Amino acid sequence: MTGEFGAIAGIAARLPSAPPGETWIGDDAAVVRLAAGWLLLAADTVVAGVHADLSLTSVEDLGWKAMAANLSDLAAMGGEPGHALVTVAGPPSSDLDRLYAGIGDAARRYSCPVVGGDLVNAPTLVVTVAVTGTVQGQPVLRRGARPGDRLWATGPMGAAAAGLRLLRGGGGGGSAAAVAARQAHSRPLPLLAEGRAARLAGATSMIDVSDGFGADIAHLADESGVGFELISLPVAPAATLEEALGGGEDYQLVFSAPDDATVSNAFRGLPAPIALGRVVADRSVRTLHGTKLDARGWQHEW
Amino acid sequence: MTGEFGAIAGIAARLPSAPPGETWIGDDAAVVRLAAGWLLLAADTVVAGVHADLSLTSVEDLGWKAMAANLSDLAAMGGEPGHALVTVAGPPSSDLDRLYAGIGDAARRYSCPVVGGDLVNAPTLVVTVAVTGTVQGQPVLRRGARPGDRLWATGPMGAAAAGLRLLRGGGGGGSAAAVAARQAHSRPLPLLAEGRAARLAGATSMIDVSDGFGADIAHLADESGVGFELISLPVAPAATLEEALGGGEDYQLVFSAPDDATVSNAFRGLPAPIALGRVVADRSVRTLHGTKLDARGWQHEW
Repeated sequence: MTGEFGAIAGIAARLPSAPPGETWIGDDAAVVRLAAGWLLLAADTVVAGVHADLSLTSVEDLGWKAMAANLSDLAAMGGEPGHALVTVAGPPSSDLDRLYAGIGDAARRYSCPVVGGDLVNAPTLVVTVAVTGTVQGQPVLRRGARPGDRLWATGPMGAAAAGLRLLRGGGGGGSAAAVAARQAHSRPLPLLAEGRAARLAGATSMIDVSDGFGADIAHLADESGVGFELISLPVAPAATLEEALGGGEDYQLVFSAPDDATVSNAFRGLPAPIALGRVVADRSVRTLHGTKLDARGWQHEW
Repeated sequence: MTGEFGAIAGIAARLPSAPPGETWIGDDAAVVRLAAGWLLLAADTVVAGVHADLSLTSVEDLGWKAMAANLSDLAAMGGEPGHALVTVAGPPSSDLDRLYAGIGDAARRYSCPVVGGDLVNAPTLVVTVAVTGTVQGQPVLRRGARPGDRLWATGPMGAAAAGLRLLRGGGGGGSAAAVAARQAHSRPLPLLAEGRAARLAGATSMIDVSDGFGADIAHLADESGVGFELISLPVAPAATLEEALGGGEDYQLVFSAPDDATVSNAFRGLPAPIALGRVVADRSVRTLHGTKLDARGWQHEW
């Protein structure tokens, strides 16, 4: 079994590589140069029955998630939303009105209008969103973390995975933790303001936690050629440690930055980011509380 | 049955409308303004078993077609390819190497590098490509045809539909017409040089024939608020009249332009475009050889 990451690496190896300064396959969004600056490009696909169980969440939520996954990729570059293209492949019976209601909710809330797309017949409902984005100054890539930088998270991990577990088990009740977890699964929020703050805080690298914390911090370390020593893994109230490590899809951002005071200033007015630990030079060192951390992320099987 | 066009109109009505000068849903590509000029955005989805019968054509061809459909949308604006995002939803057994080989062929040939995308598990193979493009000066929209303009086609119609019929019937032999028809179905060519020439020729409107000539010339007339009197419908050698009217997907371009000599000059070195007839002011007049022309295009059913 190659796994999604292996398949992507194989594909990337067979396609032309980016010119100096640009970033193509392998980060949260591609970065291409325009006359006027940088254009960010990202695309994500959501499949009914694979990424969303329509017996547990609604088709509006599926539309929202397809947009949110892309907006989170822009957030992870420190970028601003531009425009979205939406393509829907699905059975003629698909409830397009409700699907586009969810897409439209996200498009309005994050100022990322849908400007085109495609609509085709297919046996399975597959929603693909592609977005453009812009960034003031330099985008924050996955590569760039430096030994000595502090690692930060914008919030606790595992809420979306906990929410899915609760929904599968009948809901989980009305506690604040359960409500937040279900919300994190069905209407995850792209953290655009936080991504912008991290960029302004001088973040040297950033990623959104879509595959799972363990996998995504490993991606960041791999791309930067560094290791890390974590002293904290913030776990969402409703989540288990395993969900926090492997769950993903609640789109928290993880970033590295050299100066704590600059981070504090940049996040004024936003939830304070949580210090996770430090970047170290030895890339074989990857620990949480001194114990080796496996990259136990969620890989879609190929 | 609403049909794809009805569904798209319904969706467009529920999304915000474009600011003055920009074009969003409803043309071949969206046109958004950047500091430095216009950015074209298009996305198309190809579904195995719906848009390509993998018992008749290869998975490489499916990849090529997913790229070609998008590049043709850029051609129909008079644009130049920028960058592509490719998302693939499919079963783990999908032959990704061959799929990306076809995508890569088109990306290299038309200088539209793949810079990102997504890869997810799904029961059906669904390939979505989104592209950016640029245009020198003004893009050529579907709206803009004016009474008195001559209508032109970049070549004869129906080759792709004929090619599919021949493949279904066992191939159709080695005649030049049969070879060209099979090629038009399995490896359609986006007519970027022709689209550029039409723009330089002062084209007032343009569309690529993807749904079928009858449907697409009706789109152009509807968007421009005009009618047309055609004196010629060029039919590809292997095609029937019905295939020429309803087939689509061989990506010929249809455009309107006020001055014949400018068109001739702009197409020097390219296959000479074929004069189809004239744009007329009365939008209820839509004739071929004096007979009313139905918009018998190929609509994917919803």
